[in-house]
Amino acid sequence: MTFRHTTEFVVEFGDCDPAQIVFYPNYFRWMDSASRHFFVAAGVPSWHALEAQTGIFGTPLVDASARFLRTATYGDHITVETTVAEWRTKSFVMAHVVRRGADVLVEGQETRIFARRHPEDPKRIQAVAPPEEVKHLFD
Amino acid sequence: MTFRHTTEFVVEFGDCDPAQIVFYPNYFRWMDSASRHFFVAAGVPSWHALEAQTGIFGTPLVDASARFLRTATYGDHITVETTVAEWRTKSFVMAHVVRRGADVLVEGQETRIFARRHPEDPKRIQAVAPPEEVKHLFD
Amino acid sequence: MTFRHTTEFVVEFGDCDPAQIVFYPNYFRWMDSASRHFFVAAGVPSWHALEAQTGIFGTPLVDASARFLRTATYGDHITVETTVAEWRTKSFVMAHVVRRGADVLVEGQETRIFARRHPEDPKRIQAVAPPEEVKHLFD
Amino acid sequence: MTFRHTTEFVVEFGDCDPAQIVFYPNYFRWMDSASRHFFVAAGVPSWHALEAQTGIFGTPLVDASARFLRTATYGDHITVETTVAEWRTKSFVMAHVVRRGADVLVEGQETRIFARRHPEDPKRIQAVAPPEEVKHLFD
Repeated sequence: MTFRHTTEFVVEFGDCDPAQIVFYPNYFRWMDSASRHFFVAAGVPSWHALEAQTGIFGTPLVDASARFLRTATYGDHITVETTVAEWRTKSFVMAHVVRRGADVLVEGQETRIFARRHPEDPKRIQAVAPPEEVKHLFD
Repeated sequence: MTFRHTTEFVVEFGDCDPAQIVFYPNYFRWMDSASRHFFVAAGVPSWHALEAQTGIFGTPLVDASARFLRTATYGDHITVETTVAEWRTKSFVMAHVVRRGADVLVEGQETRIFARRHPEDPKRIQAVAPPEEVKHLFD
Repeated sequence: MTFRHTTEFVVEFGDCDPAQIVFYPNYFRWMDSASRHFFVAAGVPSWHALEAQTGIFGTPLVDASARFLRTATYGDHITVETTVAEWRTKSFVMAHVVRRGADVLVEGQETRIFARRHPEDPKRIQAVAPPEEVKHLFD
Repeated sequence: MTFRHTTEFVVEFGDCDPAQIVFYPNYFRWMDSASRHFFVAAGVPSWHALEAQTGIFGTPLVDASARFLRTATYGDHITVETTVAEWRTKSFVMAHVVRRGADVLVEGQETRIFARRHPEDPKRIQAVAPPEEVKHLFD
């Protein structure tokens, strides 16, 4: 059984562009938020807490993509259903389905790493293997 | 010879997240801006003018993707180099390379359509073939 | 009795800046959203509908201000309590109180007009008196 | 003689809302950016450097306000002219004038503090007096 989590958003006036539809980068903003809510719902400690324990401060992106199937406008209530589609050695893939009611609006994927500061150069970022205590939450 | 255009941006404090790096949806925001500047530089009439002539009000997305290779932070000057990678029957693919100096930060693609309002239902969007007068600008 | 409406938001990771706190323009984004939800909750027709009836397409700003009393960070659940503080001849003042639980984070005000396109130049905006059918909703 | 700095921006499609004009919180985003560029132009060390020296990590807001005089839309080139209007004991006021050519679009003010982490609770923020080495830059 795959753990899945649904996050709800309302499309606001300011999320829409002069064509009256959602300005598309906002879907990535919602997918990013859905990723964090997914981990919180799964019981993963907050980034604040995880950083204190492990040095991991977040899950930056390796790549991101989305297919836009239907448009949305302000006042629409949308949901983002999120799963981990794949665990890899140094990264993992999150899959998001954005819907308005039963209609699929957007299908997205984010490949992320668990990242900590490089021990010798705090301006650089280092990928670490997904922590076992995080992966176990999804067994 | 492929027409290409470079748009410049400055990464601002508010474009960065608590991890001190660019919040990734902003790269899609910059690619979207670069797409419009690309068309303006090529001599495509503004959406305002194009809508008056053809009903086309914009180029909404079919899909978008990006690979994130290096991080950036506020104060960084970045460039987005844009080309049309492919013209299709009802869509076209824009390729973007985001750089800081010579370093490639992000490689992105946007597949877009030329869109007008559906003649019978202005709330729906209709793809039209890329206008010849637009494509000719890139011959 | 003053009509008041409370809108709920969750502060997301991407709403925060490198100082780990909300990037302040987002509070204006939330106040703008709260204004629209306030009018929807009061029974004011949607802008889509209102524009069809009256030409009014929105309530652009004359001025906006906010006092920032406490910071917030991602994961915080916040509320925006909205009222109309004053009706004027050609404008009206909305007051917003942003809270996390009982703590006031921000106090804001927006002065807005009801706007329609100028009949002779659709690129210009014209203030119209607040429609009686809208004001009556708050009697 | 007051030190003043002008920052240039281009209004992008995605900065505008369904009313085809700038979504107003973006003006605060541009004023915030202009504030940082103002300090950089004046020779103030970057927040990165200033934090290493003094613990000051930024200049969060006490209040912000704006008067909206004219609208702008995408494709417009705008400038933000920034000065420090007043130095106070624990805060300072930045004044911004947003123009398109000679036309004033927006007049804004931001009251800010110099902030560092509270020495006993890093989650809290503490105002410190504007550093003399920063103020001297404006003598």
